[in-house]
Amino acid sequence: MADNKKMVEAITSRDVDFAQWYTDIVKKAELVDYSNVKGCMVIRPYGYAIWENMQADMDRRFKETGHENVYMPMFIPESLLQKEKDHVEGFAPECAWVTVGGSEKLAERLCVRPTSETLFCEHYSHIINTYRDLPKLYNQWCSVVRWEKTTRPFLRTSEFLWQEGHTMHETAEEAMEETLKMLKVYTDFYKETLAIPAVVGKKTEKEKFAGAEITYTIEPMMHNGVALQGGTSHYFGDGFSKNFDITFTGRDNKLHYPHQTSWGTSTRMIGALIMVHSDDDGLVLPPKIAPIQVVIVPVASHKEGVLEKAGELYNELKDKFRVKLDDSDQSPGWKFAQYEMKGVPLRLEIGPKDIEKNQCVLVRRDTREKLFVSLDNLDQTIEKLLVEIHDDMYNRALKNTEEKTHTATTYDEFLDIAKNKPGFIKAMWCGDTECENKIKEDTVGVKSRCIPFEEEHLSDTCVCCGKKAKHMVYWGKQY
Amino acid sequence: MADNKKMVEAITSRDVDFAQWYTDIVKKAELVDYSNVKGCMVIRPYGYAIWENMQADMDRRFKETGHENVYMPMFIPESLLQKEKDHVEGFAPECAWVTVGGSEKLAERLCVRPTSETLFCEHYSHIINTYRDLPKLYNQWCSVVRWEKTTRPFLRTSEFLWQEGHTMHETAEEAMEETLKMLKVYTDFYKETLAIPAVVGKKTEKEKFAGAEITYTIEPMMHNGVALQGGTSHYFGDGFSKNFDITFTGRDNKLHYPHQTSWGTSTRMIGALIMVHSDDDGLVLPPKIAPIQVVIVPVASHKEGVLEKAGELYNELKDKFRVKLDDSDQSPGWKFAQYEMKGVPLRLEIGPKDIEKNQCVLVRRDTREKLFVSLDNLDQTIEKLLVEIHDDMYNRALKNTEEKTHTATTYDEFLDIAKNKPGFIKAMWCGDTECENKIKEDTVGVKSRCIPFEEEHLSDTCVCCGKKAKHMVYWGKQY
Repeated sequence: MADNKKMVEAITSRDVDFAQWYTDIVKKAELVDYSNVKGCMVIRPYGYAIWENMQADMDRRFKETGHENVYMPMFIPESLLQKEKDHVEGFAPECAWVTVGGSEKLAERLCVRPTSETLFCEHYSHIINTYRDLPKLYNQWCSVVRWEKTTRPFLRTSEFLWQEGHTMHETAEEAMEETLKMLKVYTDFYKETLAIPAVVGKKTEKEKFAGAEITYTIEPMMHNGVALQGGTSHYFGDGFSKNFDITFTGRDNKLHYPHQTSWGTSTRMIGALIMVHSDDDGLVLPPKIAPIQVVIVPVASHKEGVLEKAGELYNELKDKFRVKLDDSDQSPGWKFAQYEMKGVPLRLEIGPKDIEKNQCVLVRRDTREKLFVSLDNLDQTIEKLLVEIHDDMYNRALKNTEEKTHTATTYDEFLDIAKNKPGFIKAMWCGDTECENKIKEDTVGVKSRCIPFEEEHLSDTCVCCGKKAKHMVYWGKQY
Repeated sequence: MADNKKMVEAITSRDVDFAQWYTDIVKKAELVDYSNVKGCMVIRPYGYAIWENMQADMDRRFKETGHENVYMPMFIPESLLQKEKDHVEGFAPECAWVTVGGSEKLAERLCVRPTSETLFCEHYSHIINTYRDLPKLYNQWCSVVRWEKTTRPFLRTSEFLWQEGHTMHETAEEAMEETLKMLKVYTDFYKETLAIPAVVGKKTEKEKFAGAEITYTIEPMMHNGVALQGGTSHYFGDGFSKNFDITFTGRDNKLHYPHQTSWGTSTRMIGALIMVHSDDDGLVLPPKIAPIQVVIVPVASHKEGVLEKAGELYNELKDKFRVKLDDSDQSPGWKFAQYEMKGVPLRLEIGPKDIEKNQCVLVRRDTREKLFVSLDNLDQTIEKLLVEIHDDMYNRALKNTEEKTHTATTYDEFLDIAKNKPGFIKAMWCGDTECENKIKEDTVGVKSRCIPFEEEHLSDTCVCCGKKAKHMVYWGKQY
């Protein structure tokens, strides 16, 4: 048990130092390694396997909604980036620039893509001619670069992996429908696959994407009450179309500009997974994306028949679940700690006494509940348990979000909550950016998260300036 | 039929101008679009779907042989790239350099990865401590950049997509075993999935990878007799380990350097697919990677029952094959030409007369053979046909390779073949780089492709200099 203990000791408690706890998990669960390249991370096999499971699930959802994958160049010529004014202003300060190719200085600098609206638009200008060419529903899986000063694995890195959807539509209505449809795809994915609840809604003018007309966002709350922008879906109108001269002949035989959307999620979601579900013993992974769903640990494996039985169970389960049999010579205690650290949803222990009784022990990672179950119909027992684990994880996260969501109707109340109670604050807002700026300053970092689709009427006036309120806003600090 | 004809006319004949034919297919089959970014291509949905199918197949093979995926940063600091002398000399001339991040000039230039040996080695130096940590069997799917002066879609572009495996082993023997195992995985993939035969063997010193001790290669021959380096597998020995100070405590309790391999294939394989199999009507895709395996085209679809029956067949087949039902209002002739251009292996035509007879028409893309088959057990008929198509495509490519493989025992013979008969030349070689240089110069571009595993004894002397021969070599021009 020495190794076991050492391992557990090495993790900072979540309640003592949330940031250090996060860093410890990321390292101890072998998700990432730091690299010599400033702000860039190495995603290790276990971390990448989580990403692959996320990708497969999302990619299926994208394809079911009619989207196709493409690949655009990773470089954007400076002149191309400059075609949309708001867009370039938003991204230029955080671009990495290639200035030398081979041994020659380039005539024009190339930006390593921070996002690919401009490249998609250039391509769309070549291939969209008539309304018959619409809609175009493209998505891209790739890495992007945004030069960051302070970084944290998964949450903020100079390079990260993501998907970016870019679509073109005949009408504004269709583009708006797509924008909301993809926000729903994200919300469903968070709920059904990551077991993460979230507040969804519209960003304010101040917080919207550079170049977008409207930005919708999904905002899950982390265990410590801090929000994470979990994914965004943008409605662009025809702004980029005009700047990139993308036109199509409509059903009326006249030229029109198509209407555009884009939407994206990234490896930040792994950060959300950690900060929503995990605990002082390490990762807690929802079964749908866990690289290992069930780990089989033989107990007293030197006794006759134990390894054989463990192997039998492995063969019985391996086509239905992602199962690992750990028959290495490490002690069971070491293995227990190891797979708890890695967040494996179910541990299956099998020893001589269990075999005698035709049973095994199942231990849930999320609750530590220990169940003695029959080996008959074991697959069904496990299937049911994995669903229960998912649902319980979702409900615990929902409870945490609800408990840490507060309401303020006066500015004093608002400031008091911002100072003393981590979480979301629901409060009315007049619609002016000045109030957002003042709130951010007065609270050291509370920003508007979003205007939810279903607004409550909390009071008549803006919580900050007292003028007539236009919207109810979720406010909070963010990663 | 006007559209139909126009479409077919637009393609240059393969025998008239192979290069133009290739470019026409790439464009007309909607595989790529050119971009404003010099040397970079846009991979369109149909091209990307081919890549996705290749990826899925290879990734399964990698995982079945125990490999795990990871993700490394896309940037390499100049000092890191310089740690292995041969390696940096090989790649520095074709690097793209990031010199500005945000608005600041970087203290050290960052190279956009042309390949990631150095990054993997840096990471391995952190995580390898004892023999228990070995082997490490990592692979990465990503894009890489090599600054090219003249480019051609898929074959040579400044950015391309690829996979790169990087593994570390306890002994030289194990590393060598891995190197050959992955070469075999590639060869199997080419044969079983791409229906492409290839010569495999060892590269000469002159042609090996920068930094490798031994490079193995798979060299398929294109329809016009030109070779394509289709994939490489490198044995590194412990050269990088020493330069990156990667050590492990061995079973003897002493420090050792691990032995390394790397292996890679790229979107070039799509180029190979085109140049091996396709014809004057467009792409011909092997069924295993065709985005659409069967296209259903209703004939006389205004007649009662035709669209219904086509829909029924679609539903019957869609879970077993990648099927598309084209019930658009284009003419059947237009559709025939369209899906021939896109290389769909089987076309299923269904019209009123077919329905009466409980049959449909299946047309093979590769041979144009037209088959009238019963609607009973249609899935089995199609399954069998797809296997036949694959095998026939492989055999035709093999026949072409064999017919275009020549033997030379004198230099005059060699030069005559090099001038007049496109293809491979088998000839003996003394082992000296000077002879390779002379041959390349005298023939305008014939290089050693590889030393095959099973060498024939064609004569006692080098075909070029007449000195004692050491090896039989496959020679040829390359893309």
